[in-house]
Amino acid sequence: MSSEFELIRRFFARPARSAVLGVGDDCALVAPEPGNVLAVTTDMLLAGRHFFPDADPEKLGHKALAVNLSDLAAMGARPCWALLAIALPEADDAWLAAFARGFFALADRHGVELVGGDTNRGPLAIAITAIGQVPQAQALRRDGARAGDDVWLSGATGEAALALAHLRGRARLEPRALEDCLARLHTPEPRVALGERLRGIASASIDVSDGLLADLGHIAESSAVGAEVSLELVPRTAALAACRDETLARACLLAGGDDYELAFTAPAGRRAELEALARELGLRLTRIGRIAAGNAGVRLLDAAGATVPAPAGWDHFR
Amino acid sequence: MSSEFELIRRFFARPARSAVLGVGDDCALVAPEPGNVLAVTTDMLLAGRHFFPDADPEKLGHKALAVNLSDLAAMGARPCWALLAIALPEADDAWLAAFARGFFALADRHGVELVGGDTNRGPLAIAITAIGQVPQAQALRRDGARAGDDVWLSGATGEAALALAHLRGRARLEPRALEDCLARLHTPEPRVALGERLRGIASASIDVSDGLLADLGHIAESSAVGAEVSLELVPRTAALAACRDETLARACLLAGGDDYELAFTAPAGRRAELEALARELGLRLTRIGRIAAGNAGVRLLDAAGATVPAPAGWDHFR
Repeated sequence: MSSEFELIRRFFARPARSAVLGVGDDCALVAPEPGNVLAVTTDMLLAGRHFFPDADPEKLGHKALAVNLSDLAAMGARPCWALLAIALPEADDAWLAAFARGFFALADRHGVELVGGDTNRGPLAIAITAIGQVPQAQALRRDGARAGDDVWLSGATGEAALALAHLRGRARLEPRALEDCLARLHTPEPRVALGERLRGIASASIDVSDGLLADLGHIAESSAVGAEVSLELVPRTAALAACRDETLARACLLAGGDDYELAFTAPAGRRAELEALARELGLRLTRIGRIAAGNAGVRLLDAAGATVPAPAGWDHFR
Repeated sequence: MSSEFELIRRFFARPARSAVLGVGDDCALVAPEPGNVLAVTTDMLLAGRHFFPDADPEKLGHKALAVNLSDLAAMGARPCWALLAIALPEADDAWLAAFARGFFALADRHGVELVGGDTNRGPLAIAITAIGQVPQAQALRRDGARAGDDVWLSGATGEAALALAHLRGRARLEPRALEDCLARLHTPEPRVALGERLRGIASASIDVSDGLLADLGHIAESSAVGAEVSLELVPRTAALAACRDETLARACLLAGGDDYELAFTAPAGRRAELEALARELGLRLTRIGRIAAGNAGVRLLDAAGATVPAPAGWDHFR
């Protein structure tokens, strides 16, 4: 069994590239480029709560970083550095090697350098802090939505929740659909390139981790506006379209969470730009509604414009 | 029971002061002052590993932040911001209120602003990321010790470990000594003011969390030097001096850990300055040894200069 210092060195220490000082001192030293500020976010993943205790460690390494990069993307920030605190029931070299493989494959793809960490023995828990940079005035906040703005969604929601429903026996997916949905659950792709390109275009942005309507609710509340979402405009992947239980499908689409898509708002005058951006990035961007005046929360509408009851959102403490 | 968003708002959300953007968006936005870089560090505390599951939440809020501020102090950085990820078995308002009280009392004392967080349900675990700032060239790293430098220690080590020994029935402390030792275990004072003042004086610095000799070993290794510590120079508090079990006393002093003192090196020419600084800060600074040439690790010496066997260090995975 390796010691803590050997563990860090073997699996996680690499020479500093963009950091002033990387792993191996009391702190790492980092600095934004001139004109930028740093965006910082932290997320904790717990066995039994956010993933199964026997989860594939390589996928877990990916996901633990991905959920943090998704927060940076929602802010329009370019990812730069990460710190990793991890508790493991035992020092398992094979597990750590696989975890590091998944972590660094995603980190390298986005130019993220691991600059600090902490390893402990305990119930499996992973806390990552990600740091990115963005020009201060271009950061995509939650509070910039204005009445009349369009509401946009990247990709599609619901597959991660549908995979969970399958794993818990509440749905039965065909093999191909299951594969797609499991990939969304275990190895979500943070919308990093999109986030950066939305600078100067989006008026507000959030990543969809708690469920589409709940997260749009945060934009609405922060911006003191209402959001209207048209149910028939919310995109459904093949797996969602094939789901015969419409109650379950809506719950997954609108309140499932774990999607790591970006929901954002933009003035109607930016539609052509956003459609061109979607083509350029090869990423679906769908207009799913609009921002209304008044601090009115989120309304879900049917094709005739009538209010549809929204499924309940996800809240870790409810 | 409160929801996650209500929990964060009620206990942890405060208006941003020094941050560009504080709690309540996907990320916080922060920036160092001109000429400074950011020092970042993360530490995870786990119930049953770093504290007893029934630990006083107010003291835990203090300690969880203190151990991170200690890392900033060791770097010579001025603390500025923190992010808090916490897992709790249940949403317990009284527990969270007490935790927040302890956390913010220390944070306010050092001008630290909480800028982000994540709350989850799970086995009690706390991961804090602290961010400070320091002029890049003045950061106190581990790799600057040179042969001939003095080795210094702030305050005194061993009391936290002695408290643990008492709690585990391996020692029996008098009430007054127990009180002192428990205070060191539960509410350590990070040496923030000292760290900042050591800029430009210390050649290397580390905080003593794993045990004095183990942590000096990190300086020795990073600096490719040896460190010689004179056992009779290592200060003993009244509680340590009263300990009749010399084996236990040495283990606590030299390998106990959880001390959160600074061990640092400085050229012999800076002695007068350091003695004046000790008086000014009202903090004992003791010269406990010297740096030797060659990558020779840490040697413990008796009064005659002979090598004394060192007690084993603390390693989370051993």
